Amino acid sequence: MKPLILITNDDGVTSKGIRALDEVAQEFGDVVVMAPEHDASGTSHSITSSRPLRVREVKQAPGLSVYCCDGTPVDCVKLAIEYFCPRKPDLVLSGINHGSNSSINVLYSGTMGAVIESTALGFDAIGFSLLHHSREADFSGCLPWVRQIIGNTLEHGLPAEVSLNVNIPRLPASEIKGIRICHEAKAMWCDSFVQRSDPQGRPYWWLTGKFVCDNPPESSDEWALANGYVSIVPVHPDFTHYPVIDELKEQYK
Amino acid sequence: MKPLILITNDDGVTSKGIRALDEVAQEFGDVVVMAPEHDASGTSHSITSSRPLRVREVKQAPGLSVYCCDGTPVDCVKLAIEYFCPRKPDLVLSGINHGSNSSINVLYSGTMGAVIESTALGFDAIGFSLLHHSREADFSGCLPWVRQIIGNTLEHGLPAEVSLNVNIPRLPASEIKGIRICHEAKAMWCDSFVQRSDPQGRPYWWLTGKFVCDNPPESSDEWALANGYVSIVPVHPDFTHYPVIDELKEQYK
Repeated sequence: MKPLILITNDDGVTSKGIRALDEVAQEFGDVVVMAPEHDASGTSHSITSSRPLRVREVKQAPGLSVYCCDGTPVDCVKLAIEYFCPRKPDLVLSGINHGSNSSINVLYSGTMGAVIESTALGFDAIGFSLLHHSREADFSGCLPWVRQIIGNTLEHGLPAEVSLNVNIPRLPASEIKGIRICHEAKAMWCDSFVQRSDPQGRPYWWLTGKFVCDNPPESSDEWALANGYVSIVPVHPDFTHYPVIDELKEQYK
Repeated sequence: MKPLILITNDDGVTSKGIRALDEVAQEFGDVVVMAPEHDASGTSHSITSSRPLRVREVKQAPGLSVYCCDGTPVDCVKLAIEYFCPRKPDLVLSGINHGSNSSINVLYSGTMGAVIESTALGFDAIGFSLLHHSREADFSGCLPWVRQIIGNTLEHGLPAEVSLNVNIPRLPASEIKGIRICHEAKAMWCDSFVQRSDPQGRPYWWLTGKFVCDNPPESSDEWALANGYVSIVPVHPDFTHYPVIDELKEQYK
């Protein structure tokens, strides 16, 4: 039986990036897409529990079923695995995101929320992001790299409880130098909000922000991307910081 | 100058848990509260970028300013630090959550989203959760432990780039055996949705789920909580799983 690949994203079911991903995925197996009906960028690992979810069938073709729902990317993964996949998926993919999910952006990313949830549920999972934020981004340059990483993962599997956060520079495929396995660069978003007044003179605050990442080391994703490489960061769903457990035990003994 | 403590949560500004926390915090310093206007449980590390945020002043008293906004817990932290704190906070607290954020629940938790964001921005931060989901939960049993952990953190600080995820059993204070420094127990939520039909006969899916955590080891938070201890898990905002970087490099060389 062919591999079953489940696909979701956070930009919504109509985005160019998810169409590019489902086309590559169909080269490897049967595909089920379950994606948010609308843009769900920045929803991180959110779940929807205060209201029910609705599902809409978008397309049925040989080897491809496309659905959307009014939930988050994490909702999409849980719901698709439980009700809409004909069998357990061999691989879960998320993306291709319109814009970077490198470094600290993994925290906010709905794309990566879906990936980390998949890993927590016991499935191999990969998030793909292109460093081009536009709705009209050109995904052709990243497709050979996406293809290689999907193929490699289906062949070899992933380390236990680890998913991949893949970011791809905005370059023609031939100008991308290769793949680097990295850690997240340390960074933060500063100057987060602009304050303005509405037409009635009442204040509002709108999220914006400046990405600050000073001198990322060569081992980091930001360095790899700035130097023309695809970055792969292995991500684990356990957020415990083990190296400080003994230090804290001293404080609380 | 007194320490400045910033407080948020995900249950909303009117919840009993945040009132309990701001009362304890006022024993240590000046307090600014910026919390979601409504329940924002399960919003994880979400941010709001598609619309502006509004802020409402709830209370001004000596040493205490309370605001709410229509954003997520992460929005609250960013907005409060940038616009509503009279100086940089010495400590950010989130909670006290009505319900557990132990084990894998940290992934979904808006309470812990705010904490992890604070750490990423360079502030010491602690999330507190009581294992009692009711809106009318009694927080008296956990207050001595909350007081001890706040005092200890203000005195000694936290390890670099580490926040604390504190969960407290639903017991009278005198029956709690002490504090244990733990790692997250491995767990997952299964049987996630119920499918039903609405009055028009159309299907909907509503999130529910069963928490599955088999034989958590003595070193884990679930074991500590089940055995009457307060659990503290150190959490780091870098999700990279460093131990597998070399293994993956072999796959991609």
